[in-house]
Amino acid sequence: MARFDGRKYNELRPLIITPDVNRFAEGSVLIEQGNTKVYCTCSFEDRVPPHRKGTGLGWVTAEYAMLPRANRERSQRDISKLKLQGRSAEIQRLIGRSLRAVVDMELMGETCLTIDCDVLQGDGGTRCASITGGFVAMALACRRLTEQRVFKKNPIKDYVCALSTGIITLDGRDQAVVDICYEEDSTALADCNLVMTGDGRFVEIQGTGEGRPYSADELINIIRVTQPCLEKVIEAQKAIITL
Amino acid sequence: MARFDGRKYNELRPLIITPDVNRFAEGSVLIEQGNTKVYCTCSFEDRVPPHRKGTGLGWVTAEYAMLPRANRERSQRDISKLKLQGRSAEIQRLIGRSLRAVVDMELMGETCLTIDCDVLQGDGGTRCASITGGFVAMALACRRLTEQRVFKKNPIKDYVCALSTGIITLDGRDQAVVDICYEEDSTALADCNLVMTGDGRFVEIQGTGEGRPYSADELINIIRVTQPCLEKVIEAQKAIITL
Amino acid sequence: MARFDGRKYNELRPLIITPDVNRFAEGSVLIEQGNTKVYCTCSFEDRVPPHRKGTGLGWVTAEYAMLPRANRERSQRDISKLKLQGRSAEIQRLIGRSLRAVVDMELMGETCLTIDCDVLQGDGGTRCASITGGFVAMALACRRLTEQRVFKKNPIKDYVCALSTGIITLDGRDQAVVDICYEEDSTALADCNLVMTGDGRFVEIQGTGEGRPYSADELINIIRVTQPCLEKVIEAQKAIITL
Amino acid sequence: MARFDGRKYNELRPLIITPDVNRFAEGSVLIEQGNTKVYCTCSFEDRVPPHRKGTGLGWVTAEYAMLPRANRERSQRDISKLKLQGRSAEIQRLIGRSLRAVVDMELMGETCLTIDCDVLQGDGGTRCASITGGFVAMALACRRLTEQRVFKKNPIKDYVCALSTGIITLDGRDQAVVDICYEEDSTALADCNLVMTGDGRFVEIQGTGEGRPYSADELINIIRVTQPCLEKVIEAQKAIITL
Amino acid sequence: MARFDGRKYNELRPLIITPDVNRFAEGSVLIEQGNTKVYCTCSFEDRVPPHRKGTGLGWVTAEYAMLPRANRERSQRDISKLKLQGRSAEIQRLIGRSLRAVVDMELMGETCLTIDCDVLQGDGGTRCASITGGFVAMALACRRLTEQRVFKKNPIKDYVCALSTGIITLDGRDQAVVDICYEEDSTALADCNLVMTGDGRFVEIQGTGEGRPYSADELINIIRVTQPCLEKVIEAQKAIITL
Amino acid sequence: MARFDGRKYNELRPLIITPDVNRFAEGSVLIEQGNTKVYCTCSFEDRVPPHRKGTGLGWVTAEYAMLPRANRERSQRDISKLKLQGRSAEIQRLIGRSLRAVVDMELMGETCLTIDCDVLQGDGGTRCASITGGFVAMALACRRLTEQRVFKKNPIKDYVCALSTGIITLDGRDQAVVDICYEEDSTALADCNLVMTGDGRFVEIQGTGEGRPYSADELINIIRVTQPCLEKVIEAQKAIITL
Repeated sequence: MARFDGRKYNELRPLIITPDVNRFAEGSVLIEQGNTKVYCTCSFEDRVPPHRKGTGLGWVTAEYAMLPRANRERSQRDISKLKLQGRSAEIQRLIGRSLRAVVDMELMGETCLTIDCDVLQGDGGTRCASITGGFVAMALACRRLTEQRVFKKNPIKDYVCALSTGIITLDGRDQAVVDICYEEDSTALADCNLVMTGDGRFVEIQGTGEGRPYSADELINIIRVTQPCLEKVIEAQKAIITL
Repeated sequence: MARFDGRKYNELRPLIITPDVNRFAEGSVLIEQGNTKVYCTCSFEDRVPPHRKGTGLGWVTAEYAMLPRANRERSQRDISKLKLQGRSAEIQRLIGRSLRAVVDMELMGETCLTIDCDVLQGDGGTRCASITGGFVAMALACRRLTEQRVFKKNPIKDYVCALSTGIITLDGRDQAVVDICYEEDSTALADCNLVMTGDGRFVEIQGTGEGRPYSADELINIIRVTQPCLEKVIEAQKAIITL
Repeated sequence: MARFDGRKYNELRPLIITPDVNRFAEGSVLIEQGNTKVYCTCSFEDRVPPHRKGTGLGWVTAEYAMLPRANRERSQRDISKLKLQGRSAEIQRLIGRSLRAVVDMELMGETCLTIDCDVLQGDGGTRCASITGGFVAMALACRRLTEQRVFKKNPIKDYVCALSTGIITLDGRDQAVVDICYEEDSTALADCNLVMTGDGRFVEIQGTGEGRPYSADELINIIRVTQPCLEKVIEAQKAIITL
Repeated sequence: MARFDGRKYNELRPLIITPDVNRFAEGSVLIEQGNTKVYCTCSFEDRVPPHRKGTGLGWVTAEYAMLPRANRERSQRDISKLKLQGRSAEIQRLIGRSLRAVVDMELMGETCLTIDCDVLQGDGGTRCASITGGFVAMALACRRLTEQRVFKKNPIKDYVCALSTGIITLDGRDQAVVDICYEEDSTALADCNLVMTGDGRFVEIQGTGEGRPYSADELINIIRVTQPCLEKVIEAQKAIITL
Repeated sequence: MARFDGRKYNELRPLIITPDVNRFAEGSVLIEQGNTKVYCTCSFEDRVPPHRKGTGLGWVTAEYAMLPRANRERSQRDISKLKLQGRSAEIQRLIGRSLRAVVDMELMGETCLTIDCDVLQGDGGTRCASITGGFVAMALACRRLTEQRVFKKNPIKDYVCALSTGIITLDGRDQAVVDICYEEDSTALADCNLVMTGDGRFVEIQGTGEGRPYSADELINIIRVTQPCLEKVIEAQKAIITL
Repeated sequence: MARFDGRKYNELRPLIITPDVNRFAEGSVLIEQGNTKVYCTCSFEDRVPPHRKGTGLGWVTAEYAMLPRANRERSQRDISKLKLQGRSAEIQRLIGRSLRAVVDMELMGETCLTIDCDVLQGDGGTRCASITGGFVAMALACRRLTEQRVFKKNPIKDYVCALSTGIITLDGRDQAVVDICYEEDSTALADCNLVMTGDGRFVEIQGTGEGRPYSADELINIIRVTQPCLEKVIEAQKAIITL
């Protein structure tokens, strides 16, 4: 039996990264991963948050939000409820940590990059698409800022991208399948977000056993299955920007 | 002397309305008016706000927001400040009144349509583009909901669209120019948003003399100049949806 | 058939402006327009908001609120809901723009005037009464501040006042009637707020076709009918303060 | 040496209670105590807060706020800061407890009275004026509601009013002086708010030693000095409404 | 007939003050008064709030909160409702005033002490326990800060503590009983919080007639009964810290 | 070279779980893990959140907060900033998912358990201590509720606990060390929170390469090193409650 949408266990959804979708942002992309679409912009500011002042170091931060009709049901805007969703808070912290891992903060000096990831349409894997697309937006911004001599040297150290892999029951067997879409996500026994750099190492791994706990061996298998797929995602990034 | 971008006083910016950009919303469009880009979705809900309960009447409401990097400078999200911008509040009330004017609330029954207008990129005239695009998203939704027998009869009564016309000093003469972009807006002596229905009448007119007050004659002239241009906008709407 | 309260189509409600109702404010009035009562104060501060810093220019801003029992039903305070009402946001932006139109910001230097308009009792036309009364409070403050040499020269350039005119069906005929009260407002087919300066020009015009769209001719008629009435309102202002 | 404004130690400021200042509220007064002016309305609602549901008992609650320019300096509105001032929270709880003490909640049935006390101008003693004026607004509302048979029997059990007494150094001697104004309050060694019913007993007493602690004897003296003055306040209430 | 828990009318609950429960705070205690348990920390900061800047004077402030399950029923956190409870606002203002009364603000210089009182378990008298325990935390902090030469001289001028006394009907007679617990509090006719300094004088007295008004004589009796008990509380404080 | 506090790489800090620290909560513990102290209560409510209504299933949720002086520096309360910290939002979602993984929601029926984890003192590993302690509080509550026949059968399916393991450079070698304290955490190259059930499987794994990315082998090593230590934590839980 095949996956929900006919893909093989290690087959990615079509991945399209369109650069420069916003004329004002220092860097921007629209990333489409299957039906998931995230609008990513990277904005430069010549100041740092309080905890960086006087350190000579820069800062990279991310914000994540879903447009009200990004999902099957319309959801209220955060401002209507006066609360940032807990889920959004969790995700934007993950994106921020992932992107910071590949930036040399000394080369930035005391400046700040803000990566905004706004989900136009969500079909699973929005946080991973935000990291993958957010990186390209950030790298485009850093290239431009370096060309403009705002940065003396490009502070990007390596690529970074992410994929979500789930354990799904297929043909009566629990199996790791990569880049799961919404329908797969909602029936997955467990799922794991892996954030990998260009050198094949990890900056974040978040595995959750929603349906049932998973064993150490299952986790190791998820890593083995996903790693080569992450390399393909980096290839897609390289088609837009090379370091 | 010509306008900032070489247009004639009564020449519209290129207007592109792309329908069905969101697979979940009952109706959706991306409207591009020059460099202004607004993502509009129309969402149906089978319930009404408290003030409509038990009346047998439907409701149409709009929400308007700018993505953080829709502008030249990044702006903070409303949720970061815990406050809906006064400007957004004012605009979404205008959009809501404009769209309600062409909907038969009795035919809706006690249901609700929410039109979300999220500005991806702003270059002047975002509130007018939101009305023009929001109408098409709403009309697409109503056609689908009528086909699905959710509505017995299509509740849309007429087209509605909007344009922003300013008084600009060109060649030493104060002149009405239609569909002003950001640069024109920021130097306009006065500007006026006109919201017109398919039968050539108005549902909203908002004129502001920011640089100097304007005379009744100037206002009348603005109306005369803008009316034929609004008819062209309705033609663009008709290319996507006919009532 | 006469209007709801027996007035002629172009007859104002009794208009009483009582100056100096607050001993602390630099300027203050209680404005009563029929049963509408608004308490207006103008406060001076020797500082400007961030967007004016270093420009040498002053700023004028307005805040508008209704006391909880200003209306037929008690309404919750904004602070109970943690949200400024959208309607209040829209109105206070209108008041601010109207008052700024008649102030020379250079003569103010980098100082700020805040006009607070608190509705004690609302019976239609509260935003217009706020502009009319708010202007007098502001002009009283500017006269005093000029006498005290805080301002070298009085920054007030002209009078400004407002009236709300509606299209009402009387004797089977749709007719423009000025200074509409609550009952007229709730049955009006359309209504229009006109903000006029002492020289007979307009700084704001806001027309809304709530019941049905209105034609350009109807709008022009509204302006023609209202203009002489606005002159009477300026006479009432002049009885308190002359420039 | 006399008091700041020439009054004797046990002399009240001029006290004017104007009834029926609001045409919508079930009861309303403007209370002026010297330069302190509070606009009080009492609103009836045919429902109770959750903790009263199903008990057969009514509820009385109060809200207190200062208009932005009630004081020497303009203060920001609560909604601008998204926080009810701690001082306002403390005061409205005091007003609510004071008014509830003289209402028979059983006679109210499951209905609610909200007393809004909005300070137009503050010159010391605003919380006491709110209790004294709020009681009259509430009593006027209850009389009307009883006449209209909303209440079978008037639920008001007794009068209630309040005064603020301070310990001030006059002629080198620390002395209790009643109904202190702002200037006296800001130099008082201690001050005490006393809330008394028509039968001469207390429902609230709040004494604070801001400048220095006070002895039990001083507190007892404050009570002795204030009690006859509170009786005069009740006489002023009786001039408007008798139970 | 005896009290709910068998105590005599003037008998305190077991009072245990455990110092230094927090390794980071400059001063800290856990105070247990019967089943009431409050965790108090005192934090030093080398800055003052705006109203103290440039005055050379220090500031002392308090914050009070209940953990969600401090009571019989779980209550929502303030942040879930986006509102500080009115009751908490009232209490923390009382604690702040009480503690400020015994501190020499000049000796503090422009520094700030924040006393946090978090109720782990509430069984009546939490505000009084917060004052009593908060004082010890503050005194421990001041001793340490004086030893560390942050303060040249210990700014603590005197002890301060608090007890809550109620009027309860026992054996058919209304009687003042000290240090009332939750069950007594909920049936008390009146209750009074007394805040006393080491020299036997008062800085705060808050008496409320919830069940019925109380006479001046009853209030005087409450003071007479409570004063010797407050002296015992000061003895408990002295066991931890002597000035 | 040894660890910061002399422990071996696989040595836990002293772990003390004190049950029943709160007389009102259905279950409660104080968990002390070295200098980290978390006060955990479990509260039962006979209702479910909206998304569970009509499903017959129960719900388990967690809230996490730090007291203001839990850390080296005092931090503002969330309510002062009107925002739940993003970090707290992330952590309480992790705790909730971890605890839900070991509860049979069908056996709960439509009831809700809320586990509050309030950090009295933080020295690293507070989220893990919250899971370990929160589980015991929840299990104590479930045992009691089952004894009281609120639950027909105990819904707890298995133990769950957590530990934080970091990669630290010791003796020039990057090494995995378990149960890291604050000082180790702030210098760790990477750290990983592992949440394990009684059967040795995982419900959550969160690895972050803050200092540098980590390889798949390093992650696998972390799991190998931590698993036996997690078994010791479960032993500590079993000392308080056995399933």
